[in-house]
Amino acid sequence: MSHRVMVVGASAAGLRCAARLRRLQPDWRITVLEKSTAYSFAACGFPYVLSGDIDGLEELRSTAWGALRDRRFFEEVKGLEILEGHRVLAIDPEAKTLDAEGPDGFLRLGWDELVLATGASPARLPGQPAHPRVQSFHVREDVAALKRGLIHGEIGHVAVIGAGLVGVELAEAFRSLWGAEVTLLEAAGHPLPQPLDPEAGALVRAALEAEGVRVRCGAAVERIEPDDTGVTVLCGGEPVRVDLAVVAVGVRPNVELAKSAGVALGRTGAIAVDGRLATSVPHIWAAGDCTEVRHAVSGEPAYCPLGSLANRQGRVLAGVLAGREERFGSVAGAMAVKVFGVSVAAAGCSLAEARRLGFQAEAVWMTTDDRAHYWPESEDIHIQLVFEPETLRVLGAQAVGKGRVADAVDVAAQLLLRGATVTELEGVEHCYAPPFAPALAPLAVAGFVARNHVEGVRCLSPLLAAEGRRVLDVRLTAEQQARPWEWGESLHIPVEELRGRLAELDHSVPWLVVCERGTRSAEAVRWLLQRKIDACYLGGGMIWRWSAGGESR
Amino acid sequence: MSHRVMVVGASAAGLRCAARLRRLQPDWRITVLEKSTAYSFAACGFPYVLSGDIDGLEELRSTAWGALRDRRFFEEVKGLEILEGHRVLAIDPEAKTLDAEGPDGFLRLGWDELVLATGASPARLPGQPAHPRVQSFHVREDVAALKRGLIHGEIGHVAVIGAGLVGVELAEAFRSLWGAEVTLLEAAGHPLPQPLDPEAGALVRAALEAEGVRVRCGAAVERIEPDDTGVTVLCGGEPVRVDLAVVAVGVRPNVELAKSAGVALGRTGAIAVDGRLATSVPHIWAAGDCTEVRHAVSGEPAYCPLGSLANRQGRVLAGVLAGREERFGSVAGAMAVKVFGVSVAAAGCSLAEARRLGFQAEAVWMTTDDRAHYWPESEDIHIQLVFEPETLRVLGAQAVGKGRVADAVDVAAQLLLRGATVTELEGVEHCYAPPFAPALAPLAVAGFVARNHVEGVRCLSPLLAAEGRRVLDVRLTAEQQARPWEWGESLHIPVEELRGRLAELDHSVPWLVVCERGTRSAEAVRWLLQRKIDACYLGGGMIWRWSAGGESR
Repeated sequence: MSHRVMVVGASAAGLRCAARLRRLQPDWRITVLEKSTAYSFAACGFPYVLSGDIDGLEELRSTAWGALRDRRFFEEVKGLEILEGHRVLAIDPEAKTLDAEGPDGFLRLGWDELVLATGASPARLPGQPAHPRVQSFHVREDVAALKRGLIHGEIGHVAVIGAGLVGVELAEAFRSLWGAEVTLLEAAGHPLPQPLDPEAGALVRAALEAEGVRVRCGAAVERIEPDDTGVTVLCGGEPVRVDLAVVAVGVRPNVELAKSAGVALGRTGAIAVDGRLATSVPHIWAAGDCTEVRHAVSGEPAYCPLGSLANRQGRVLAGVLAGREERFGSVAGAMAVKVFGVSVAAAGCSLAEARRLGFQAEAVWMTTDDRAHYWPESEDIHIQLVFEPETLRVLGAQAVGKGRVADAVDVAAQLLLRGATVTELEGVEHCYAPPFAPALAPLAVAGFVARNHVEGVRCLSPLLAAEGRRVLDVRLTAEQQARPWEWGESLHIPVEELRGRLAELDHSVPWLVVCERGTRSAEAVRWLLQRKIDACYLGGGMIWRWSAGGESR
Repeated sequence: MSHRVMVVGASAAGLRCAARLRRLQPDWRITVLEKSTAYSFAACGFPYVLSGDIDGLEELRSTAWGALRDRRFFEEVKGLEILEGHRVLAIDPEAKTLDAEGPDGFLRLGWDELVLATGASPARLPGQPAHPRVQSFHVREDVAALKRGLIHGEIGHVAVIGAGLVGVELAEAFRSLWGAEVTLLEAAGHPLPQPLDPEAGALVRAALEAEGVRVRCGAAVERIEPDDTGVTVLCGGEPVRVDLAVVAVGVRPNVELAKSAGVALGRTGAIAVDGRLATSVPHIWAAGDCTEVRHAVSGEPAYCPLGSLANRQGRVLAGVLAGREERFGSVAGAMAVKVFGVSVAAAGCSLAEARRLGFQAEAVWMTTDDRAHYWPESEDIHIQLVFEPETLRVLGAQAVGKGRVADAVDVAAQLLLRGATVTELEGVEHCYAPPFAPALAPLAVAGFVARNHVEGVRCLSPLLAAEGRRVLDVRLTAEQQARPWEWGESLHIPVEELRGRLAELDHSVPWLVVCERGTRSAEAVRWLLQRKIDACYLGGGMIWRWSAGGESR
């Protein structure tokens, strides 16, 4: 009798697992049960079908060589049995059977190993009405319906509720090609509140607003009232009238089947698995968006429904089931998202999250070039680094800019995964040539900024007001005249004159030193401190503040 | 009496060191001696001044905020004493003095700590004539002279001797804007022979040839004969007649001063330093292109004259001199170079180098998308991974492509630095969103390919002939018809039909399975091996071979 493996869910995790297991165990019986009849979509591409960047849904269901990943493909090429249109109703872990309902009625199937790859579903708001004008964005039907509405000109103004990953991608999708009016509503104080702190979030907000998206943060949606001609969204006491509301307030793991089988959930509410992706019930395994992972920084369980992790988990689980010593390790939670022309990436913990976890964390901000500053295509990169001053451990990195942003965070993730310190960040090696990077890697510079901070050369959040400090602007006269400090009074002494004009500074008051990017001002602060003058500088420089649209709001 | 530090050489390492030391030790006397009167150029940008990508030399001598880094800048902004136009003639380590010759004659200066940042000089060919038509490319005078020649139309055909980093950058610079005929001569069998193996090198060669550069590899230059109207370069018995020859056969560390002071050189011929960048002589330190580093993969001394390392060394040395516990660690030798529209990056050891070092190394090749395959801007990335099958240790990574190439190697460098294995590579975490990456990172896929190789699913170099194996083409019929296998006979069975048509294969002969990128063929090989049919596949797929211009030459 050959070993029989059942996989519930033809998602990334389920199919990766099944296909690899087939390669490793050619004689096993491997069956994938999937409730839908159209599956195996690269769902992360859905927003780009809506935006028109990608022509159609079929592209998301095709291999790199253009083969459609339908049942025939999985059967002929991958050697898998796919029971599509089959909803699994119950699992009996003792008898090792499952009950499913398919096009031909009910059936009971036996298994030796069962893989739960049930994915996630969009979260709903309390009291969210079921109405065609109030949509989710999760499955291909959602994409098709919205695209139809756009093509027919029925969506002139849309409210996107939730500025998480999907929310900001949707805002761009509705706005960029179709030119719809978009109001993006976020209960937290800034977009992407999970991965980003307010400073990096302000850059994202500005990127959205620069393209005409109306961003309203800091107030939860109170009520959604659809009618025949539109939807009224009440939020912060103020109604927004739109043609359509899309709710994108995150996803919840699909765990009902697991629960009914007695499989333990973790504290995040997702299925708890160990490094082998084993659940609490012997011979029942789980992978993908229905599971929780271990976060490398906190050491705690976390819910990270990311396609990259689901794909890797599926592969690892296949190896484990085939009898290999493979393990799925902790994750840094590396993520990236495109916001019109701006790239956003993060890994590890935000400052808020780190403090919630009990770290004595602080953050620093910096702006530098992503390539040699004299390279014509170089772009500003803004990095917010979260770390623990006492241990120097790096806890998180957030980066925003038009250029090599995800790249910096890819490397930061490697450092976060091994608990690296600011010292290691300072010495990070990188591929250098002027078209690719500055001679000192942006991440290394972020390390220098953190080191300075620990040594007392402290930076103030780029969004905060001077707060009683007098402002010293150390830029070149031309820079100062082209774009003066616009948030109150300032004294202007170019850094090259500072050594000679120290007497002009009132030594008895605290100073906030500012420059374009924070480099010169940090140097000036160190010099002033050595002369017993109280000073700090504007983190990330005026470029960060300008890019974010001003002081904190 | 304040501590006195003398730095010899106003290069990246010397100036970084001096400037940071000034910040850390505001009361020390810090003097930089520099033989030239124009220095502090970002020399890595020189080829791009020649090409016209960068307007002028001054840009390479300016800060990000546009300040010229001349003596006044270093004195006023950085608080350093610069003795420019001063050549150091001798060092007395006992008396702690140095003798220099400057515009005002000889002087003897005392020091407490001496930093050698004497850089490197272009290597010369044996018998290289001193003639205006035979140039090096190292200092700004070289750039200016060549640019003048181009502007005046005096350089219609140029021979670039040496296809290292500078050589290929020069080939592009002469060719792209100016349209000069360029003949690139390389003694080794392929361009960039130090970081790359023949397979990755063939991609670079093809990228050069696609832009009209004539590439001649595998024969050393025998003689260079300049005359009044041109230069004849004899190479492999064949003369090349050009207007100008530029010799770019690497650099040699400037160690004469160190030697004369009794400072020990390492086995590479560069100054030997420890992790503190201390030389063998107390109170004499060294940083930058005059020193050797420790290679993370080999554990051996290596000579890596890279701007990124020089900058970091300068910083670290300042910290050490200031009394801090900083160290300059081993390096992976991460490098990158742009070759017209193609990016090339590498870290660690090539296969050839790894074997020379005694590793039982092997290589695998792969081609994949640098972003989601359905993302319109995704590009092929070719990765050659060098590893040790027995220990699974990763020894090196080479990547070539039009997209996110340096990024992958930046991450690979982090793995190489900590001696990571193929297993760790397979599990590499990355920032995923369709515009930035595929769901499985290209590096992870390279790990899968290496794992497969170890398990017997072996790939053949993409440049090698089938060597007695029969060729099985498993692509779609449309792909096969659009671009058939062109190197001999082949049997075509699309992968989706393979399970049903196994009988068509002669089970007694060895097979080479081919497909576009190596993915399907690897899967087919595993499946054939399970059925006791001897098979391997074409590494990196036909795309690699086509990109490289065919079979090995």
